[in-house]
Amino acid sequence: MSELRYHPFLDQWVITATHRQDRTFFPPPDYNPLAPTKPGGFPTEIPFPEYDIVVFQNKFPSLSLTPPNPAVPGTELLPVRPAAGACEVVCYSQDPNTSFAQMPFLQVRKLVRVWRDRYVSLAAHPEIEYVFIFENKGKEIGVTLSHPHGQIYAYPFIPPILAIELAAEQRHFERTGRPLMEEVLEASAAPNAVNGENQIIVENDSAVAFIPFFARYPYEVYVAPKAHRRSLGEMNDAELDGFGEVLQVVAQKYDRLFGFSMPYVMAMHQAPTAAGYESTWLHVEFYPPYRTATKLKYLAGSEAGAGAYINDTLPEVTAKTLREV
Amino acid sequence: MSELRYHPFLDQWVITATHRQDRTFFPPPDYNPLAPTKPGGFPTEIPFPEYDIVVFQNKFPSLSLTPPNPAVPGTELLPVRPAAGACEVVCYSQDPNTSFAQMPFLQVRKLVRVWRDRYVSLAAHPEIEYVFIFENKGKEIGVTLSHPHGQIYAYPFIPPILAIELAAEQRHFERTGRPLMEEVLEASAAPNAVNGENQIIVENDSAVAFIPFFARYPYEVYVAPKAHRRSLGEMNDAELDGFGEVLQVVAQKYDRLFGFSMPYVMAMHQAPTAAGYESTWLHVEFYPPYRTATKLKYLAGSEAGAGAYINDTLPEVTAKTLREV
Repeated sequence: MSELRYHPFLDQWVITATHRQDRTFFPPPDYNPLAPTKPGGFPTEIPFPEYDIVVFQNKFPSLSLTPPNPAVPGTELLPVRPAAGACEVVCYSQDPNTSFAQMPFLQVRKLVRVWRDRYVSLAAHPEIEYVFIFENKGKEIGVTLSHPHGQIYAYPFIPPILAIELAAEQRHFERTGRPLMEEVLEASAAPNAVNGENQIIVENDSAVAFIPFFARYPYEVYVAPKAHRRSLGEMNDAELDGFGEVLQVVAQKYDRLFGFSMPYVMAMHQAPTAAGYESTWLHVEFYPPYRTATKLKYLAGSEAGAGAYINDTLPEVTAKTLREV
Repeated sequence: MSELRYHPFLDQWVITATHRQDRTFFPPPDYNPLAPTKPGGFPTEIPFPEYDIVVFQNKFPSLSLTPPNPAVPGTELLPVRPAAGACEVVCYSQDPNTSFAQMPFLQVRKLVRVWRDRYVSLAAHPEIEYVFIFENKGKEIGVTLSHPHGQIYAYPFIPPILAIELAAEQRHFERTGRPLMEEVLEASAAPNAVNGENQIIVENDSAVAFIPFFARYPYEVYVAPKAHRRSLGEMNDAELDGFGEVLQVVAQKYDRLFGFSMPYVMAMHQAPTAAGYESTWLHVEFYPPYRTATKLKYLAGSEAGAGAYINDTLPEVTAKTLREV
C-alpha cells in the first residue's frame, strides 16, 4: 500500500508507504540480497551468477509506474494522490566488500554512465517530475546493507528542497544574469578571509569539489561540473569521466579523514524533467554525519523541528583539512 | 565564534558556531552539569544547592543578545550577520532520574508557565523574530545528558519550516476564512476511512493530541489547544494546565508504547514575535525516532537530500495503537 498525502502546513506531499515487511522466506545468516545469485545458491534480488553494474526496481517500491489505488479517499482539505514514480536500486559492483571510494575507476566511469542513462530514461515518463539519484551509506544513517549501492527515486512532484533551490537559482539569474552556481564556484576558488586559502577540495578539467561558505554540515562537500550543465543528460563522456573522478576522490578523502569508511548521504541535484529551469546547475552534495572521528552530528530540534541548521565547524578550516588528507 | 551565513541556494541562514569545546576543567566521571551544586561539591551550571525549575543561558550559545562580530566579512553574494538571539536551557526538575513523562503533574504545570514566561520575555527583544521551545530527548538523537531538560532558541529570523507553515496558514485563511488548524482538528476527530475511528490520542477541555493524516514520522503527534491561540502568551492558567496535561499524557503513552523511555524531538510552533500572523495556531509536534521497538527511522537521502518524507506507517493505525496503550 502506498499513496501520496498532502501536508497542508508544509505544502508538500508525504509518501505513505505501508508494505508488508515480513519476509516469507528465511534467508541464511550471511544473506546478501544484492549479491549475484550463485548456481544452486539462495536466490538474491539479482537472478544472475555475476554482474557488472545492475539497476532494478525496489521489491517494495514506495513509488511505482503502476501505483496502487490510494487506501483512502482524499478530501479538499487533505488531498491524496497515487504514488506514481519509481524507486530503483543501483548496485555499483558485484563485490560486496568494495565501495564507491574503493572500486576501480573503470567501475566509476561505468556508474556515471548508468546514472545518466537512468536519468534520461526515467525523465521520459510523463508521470515523473524529478529524478533523484542518491546514496545512503553506513549504519550511522540506517543502512544495514554494506554491499556498495545507491538508489534512484523518481518523484511525481518536485521535492521541497529542490523546489526552494530552483526558485532561488531562478531569482538570482533574473537579478544578475548569471547562474548562482557560477558565482558560488568563483567565490569558493578565491582566497578566503579565515586562512587566505580557497575552499576547493579537488578539481580537474571537468569538475570541482568544494566546501561551500554556507555549509550546513561539517565536511559537507559540493561537487559540480565547471561548465554549465543542468543534468547528467547534458554531459558528454569526457565530462562524465572527470565528474566521476572528482566524486570518487572526495569519497576517498572522506575515508582517510578519520581512518574509517565514512558514512554519508550523497544527493545529486539535477534539473527537473520538464522544460525550463535554464539557470539550474547539476551538482552533488555529500553530507557525512561525523563532525569529529567520534562525534556524530544529529538532526534534532533546531534542524528537524525548525529547519535551522547549526554548523559547529568553519568551512574554511574543514576545507583545508579535507583537501590535505 | 558564531555568525549567520546566508545559504543562497536554500534561501536561509545557517548558524556557524565554532566554540572551543575543550573544557578547561576535569569533572568527575558521574558529573551532571544540570544537577544543583552541592555545598563543597563540583560546581555545575546551576550555582544553587537545590532548585525547582531553572532556566539559564547556554554556556556556549550559538545565538546571543550580545553576539560577537562575525569572523569574516560578508559579500553581496554571501552575506553574513551577527548571530543575535538567545540559546537557553530549561531544567525541568532537579531530579536527574525523572523525565517530562514521569515528573509530578505539579511540575508540568510550573513548566508550561515557565515556557510562557520565557516566550513573552524573549519575544520582547527587537532582535528576536522567533522563539522556538523544544526538547531533544534520548541518545538516539544525540542527547547524552539524561537529566530532564529542554531548550529555547530565539532566532533573529523566522526559521525555514516555520516560514513555510505560516505562509500556508495565511493562504488557507485567505481562501476559506478559517484557520487551517481548526479544519485539521475537525478532520482528525472524524471517523476515518481505514478503521472508522478517529486519530485522537487524548484530549481534555483545553487541548487535544492527534496523529495527523499527513504525518511524516511514525507516531508523530500534534498537540494543539482547542481554542484558537497563537502562542502560550495568549493562554490563561487553566488553558495552560490542560495543555500541559495532554502533553504529558502523550509522553507517558510513548513510554508505554515500546516499554522504554521513548526518545523524541518535541517542537513547539508559535506565532513569530512581530504583529500579524493572525491565522497561525500554537501547537507542539513530537517526532519519536522509532518506527518499531527495535527499528529507527533515519532522515537520509530522500528526507535530508530532497526534503521528501516517507512514512511507512499508517496514521490511522498508529493513532489507534498509541491511544490504546
